[in-house]
Amino acid sequence: MTSRNDIEKRFKALQKKICDALEKLDGKSAFRSDQWTRPEGGGGLTKVLTDGEVIEKGGVNFSAVHGHAPKKITDALGFGPSKFYATGVSIVLHPQNPWMPIIHMNIRYFDMSPEDPEAESTYWFGGGIDLTPHYVDLKDAGFFHKALKTVCDKSDPMYYDRFKKWADDYFYIRHRKETRGIGGIFFDRLNEMNEQHSFEELWDFVVNVGEQFIPVYQYFVEKYAHKPYDEPHKQWQLLRRGRYVEFNLVWDKGTKFGLDTDGRTESILMSLPANASWSYDYQPIAGSDEEKTLSLLKKDIDWISYA
Amino acid sequence: MTSRNDIEKRFKALQKKICDALEKLDGKSAFRSDQWTRPEGGGGLTKVLTDGEVIEKGGVNFSAVHGHAPKKITDALGFGPSKFYATGVSIVLHPQNPWMPIIHMNIRYFDMSPEDPEAESTYWFGGGIDLTPHYVDLKDAGFFHKALKTVCDKSDPMYYDRFKKWADDYFYIRHRKETRGIGGIFFDRLNEMNEQHSFEELWDFVVNVGEQFIPVYQYFVEKYAHKPYDEPHKQWQLLRRGRYVEFNLVWDKGTKFGLDTDGRTESILMSLPANASWSYDYQPIAGSDEEKTLSLLKKDIDWISYA
Repeated sequence: MTSRNDIEKRFKALQKKICDALEKLDGKSAFRSDQWTRPEGGGGLTKVLTDGEVIEKGGVNFSAVHGHAPKKITDALGFGPSKFYATGVSIVLHPQNPWMPIIHMNIRYFDMSPEDPEAESTYWFGGGIDLTPHYVDLKDAGFFHKALKTVCDKSDPMYYDRFKKWADDYFYIRHRKETRGIGGIFFDRLNEMNEQHSFEELWDFVVNVGEQFIPVYQYFVEKYAHKPYDEPHKQWQLLRRGRYVEFNLVWDKGTKFGLDTDGRTESILMSLPANASWSYDYQPIAGSDEEKTLSLLKKDIDWISYA
Repeated sequence: MTSRNDIEKRFKALQKKICDALEKLDGKSAFRSDQWTRPEGGGGLTKVLTDGEVIEKGGVNFSAVHGHAPKKITDALGFGPSKFYATGVSIVLHPQNPWMPIIHMNIRYFDMSPEDPEAESTYWFGGGIDLTPHYVDLKDAGFFHKALKTVCDKSDPMYYDRFKKWADDYFYIRHRKETRGIGGIFFDRLNEMNEQHSFEELWDFVVNVGEQFIPVYQYFVEKYAHKPYDEPHKQWQLLRRGRYVEFNLVWDKGTKFGLDTDGRTESILMSLPANASWSYDYQPIAGSDEEKTLSLLKKDIDWISYA
């Protein structure tokens, strides 16, 4: 049976595999590694690549932390005082080239054991992959979602539709009335109680999601990393990064939770771009690629139909 | 007696006066004006200046809105269903020159009338001025705080100490364990119940705070707007702006409330800079001006002692 330790090891190996592959794809910069410990228990390994050929700023974070669960969490879950354990891999890559998308992946395992020996413990898996193109291309969106559907279908024919909708709802910038990008899949609290799948089956699914990251990203690197662009494309990329910052700091529950509970700030905020812009009441030119992208930042688009 | 209408008119006149003065100080760019209405009642006038000689991006917003108070607010205040009215002027100026500080001012009036005719209504004034220098200079900080103390002392000898501490606590970036800048004054819920002052005295205080804005800003424009700087100073300014964005999007209650209650996003987020940067785990050089500034981003510094 897969233990906490097995999960941790597998996540760490995945981090290494992904970083090795990204360095190869980038061809110029290498990851810098920061090992850190959490005073209350556990720690992590944060890897950051900057000023690459393909990636301007990217982070691949592994962590495995444990301790007493904050009251906020136990209350929200209807638990009494409990110990928790959480491990995961989290990635955000901001590319140099505006034709390249921003990509985000996260996979995680969480469990909680009440101090009351009579009370039941719980665990779950969560995660997802989602894409934030600066310019939305329907064919690319189709490719991306199809790749995610393939992974989902291996585990459960219902997963893709459920988790695609979940991503649409989660990665929504409410105050802009637009989605962060073209979504992807998002899932949380997967466990035997909520699903028709065993612990081992859920774990397989999570590993498969993690393994899908590089093939998907490679498609975009090969297609766009060296595509010529002009200054206006770069300006637009900076504005879209501004929206990314807004989502992460205002709405993202993981970021909020991390900052609220004294997480390691530099690891949490490695998701922010090297630079971003804000322009008061920016309006794209009618008929432009920028306007087309804005018109596609909506929930419930059937991207696969464009594959 | 001063009516809602008088307050609104005075705030609007102050907005015009401040914008006229800022255009003169800037010498290059003019404010663009956007009149807007709020579907649920009221509206505002947002004025934004961009690409100036002194100001890179600055907003001076006036609003006067009314309607049914959101349940979140009435619950928090222990009120039943109520109508509210709120008017105020809000300013954030991001300068071009890194030697210039970012400045923020807000003054506001709020009242609430329960629908239950037996229940008592309430009102209050709130606001403040605070400064976020990219480089902290003790003498300037002394000047700034002394100017605020002078305004406070006209109304109440206790005000400056109370409101200076309130600003220290409010403008604190918890996840960075640093203050946003050198603070200033911050006050809220000033009314006859909480203070030893009449409505008219409190209103006078708020007007005096508003009138202090231009003289204070002028000091910095004259001293720093044309001081030569190098690329590393500009880079540092962008990093400090990143922190400003973090505070506003993560911790600022006004921003959060506006975004949560479907306020006019472009007016709320006019506080964000034209551009900002993030650098993973940035460490200033030992003994540098940047390090000195970081060492001064703390609560409870007696700035006036450096005047």
